[in-house]
Amino acid sequence: MFIYQTLVRVRYAETDQMGFVYYGHYATYFEVARVEAMRALGISYKSLEDSGIQMPVTDFHIRYKKPGRYDELLRIETRIEEIPSLRIRFNYTTFNEQEELLNTAETELVFIDSSRKRPVKAPETLLSALVPFFHPNGI
Amino acid sequence: MFIYQTLVRVRYAETDQMGFVYYGHYATYFEVARVEAMRALGISYKSLEDSGIQMPVTDFHIRYKKPGRYDELLRIETRIEEIPSLRIRFNYTTFNEQEELLNTAETELVFIDSSRKRPVKAPETLLSALVPFFHPNGI
Amino acid sequence: MFIYQTLVRVRYAETDQMGFVYYGHYATYFEVARVEAMRALGISYKSLEDSGIQMPVTDFHIRYKKPGRYDELLRIETRIEEIPSLRIRFNYTTFNEQEELLNTAETELVFIDSSRKRPVKAPETLLSALVPFFHPNGI
Amino acid sequence: MFIYQTLVRVRYAETDQMGFVYYGHYATYFEVARVEAMRALGISYKSLEDSGIQMPVTDFHIRYKKPGRYDELLRIETRIEEIPSLRIRFNYTTFNEQEELLNTAETELVFIDSSRKRPVKAPETLLSALVPFFHPNGI
Repeated sequence: MFIYQTLVRVRYAETDQMGFVYYGHYATYFEVARVEAMRALGISYKSLEDSGIQMPVTDFHIRYKKPGRYDELLRIETRIEEIPSLRIRFNYTTFNEQEELLNTAETELVFIDSSRKRPVKAPETLLSALVPFFHPNGI
Repeated sequence: MFIYQTLVRVRYAETDQMGFVYYGHYATYFEVARVEAMRALGISYKSLEDSGIQMPVTDFHIRYKKPGRYDELLRIETRIEEIPSLRIRFNYTTFNEQEELLNTAETELVFIDSSRKRPVKAPETLLSALVPFFHPNGI
Repeated sequence: MFIYQTLVRVRYAETDQMGFVYYGHYATYFEVARVEAMRALGISYKSLEDSGIQMPVTDFHIRYKKPGRYDELLRIETRIEEIPSLRIRFNYTTFNEQEELLNTAETELVFIDSSRKRPVKAPETLLSALVPFFHPNGI
Repeated sequence: MFIYQTLVRVRYAETDQMGFVYYGHYATYFEVARVEAMRALGISYKSLEDSGIQMPVTDFHIRYKKPGRYDELLRIETRIEEIPSLRIRFNYTTFNEQEELLNTAETELVFIDSSRKRPVKAPETLLSALVPFFHPNGI
């Protein structure tokens, strides 16, 4: 399993009149979280896209436990729990500064060859960066 | 079952560099869809909030089939499939102008007494507006 | 002068924890307003872009008088006060349902040939649609 | 004069189908920039608001020179060029990673007593934090 922590500061623009982070903005926070998780693996999503691979989201599910609030530095734990093939799943757990659980979520993304508009397998660079986290004993 | 159709025009602000509606914006479209569905039932969400009832989202799940695109007039079908009690579920199906299915989604919301910050039952005005759609034969 | 009225309903997503429309969202409302103003002239911005003309904003200025609020149906008056050439200016005045003035604003946009990435003159279709509003006496 | 630098990473959510940062999102970036500038002065905007002072924006003007792009780490230089009284002005200059000038902008904000909904003078804590930057010789 690959785990990565990302900190995201809540912007005023992202609050709503309940005084909470609007429920739709977590999609953006998770975009930041998975892009930073991939960067930590040595994979720039921008470079991936420039090389002709796009990764649209095909499924997003979030369960809200507590609201995020303005100016909080949220901690998002991002996990890749299985080696991707045609699809990649990211699991997210969001905590506030008091380490209270705010929500849990998952996204599923596919790999698309942007010139042929067709699904393709996960790029080799991503797979080889992930392998060490799934075979920790080198077996 | 209560069903309502809402049209939402895709704004340039809501597209991303793939040329698609960014996956997080559907949360906002579904907010519009359920608020308009409630308005059609005679319930203003704004009045509900002014009267002390807030409805935060506790669960959101969306499965993306095809992307929405700039300037399309999306048609969102919103359904309330069961009489709410402590929670209310809305189901959504989004179509583009060619009547292609873009996605299906659900949200679950709770009713909160905003002064006491406690869950409460669905307000009577909402329940009585919904009842005719669930007992169509008057039985 | 060409004048057009657009109605925009404030979404919950667009409020902030002050209970007001976040100041940055008016840029999106004005995008909606000018696109609808152009559509009323028979010009689809989407078609314009598909035909190779992009219109990025080069200047945006807004003076806020009163805040917009959730669920209000804002009325935006959009004006084109002079025939465009290399640039087009839109002037906006926003009112709430009580006809209170919320803000006044202007945007300046240029016409870009998207293949050559070069500024070009306003397209003929736009100019000929605008002319009648600037020579009302047919002179 | 008080000057502060803030880095903001462009999110995919903030791009549009031109492949650029949507023009309205700079309002949010400048919110981040001025809040971080104030934090560097020892002033938390959140604490200010909790203590009963709100700072709505009354004027925003931006001149776009070049577009921002996905994943760029934008550098925003924020300047307070004069001691605030009833109003505070922030000036912003945005650069990309190649140190190209993307835009220049200003915002004007007022101080509001949130219980009485009345304008008030800049809080003493802010003034005393700013004074050293305007009288560098201690005269």
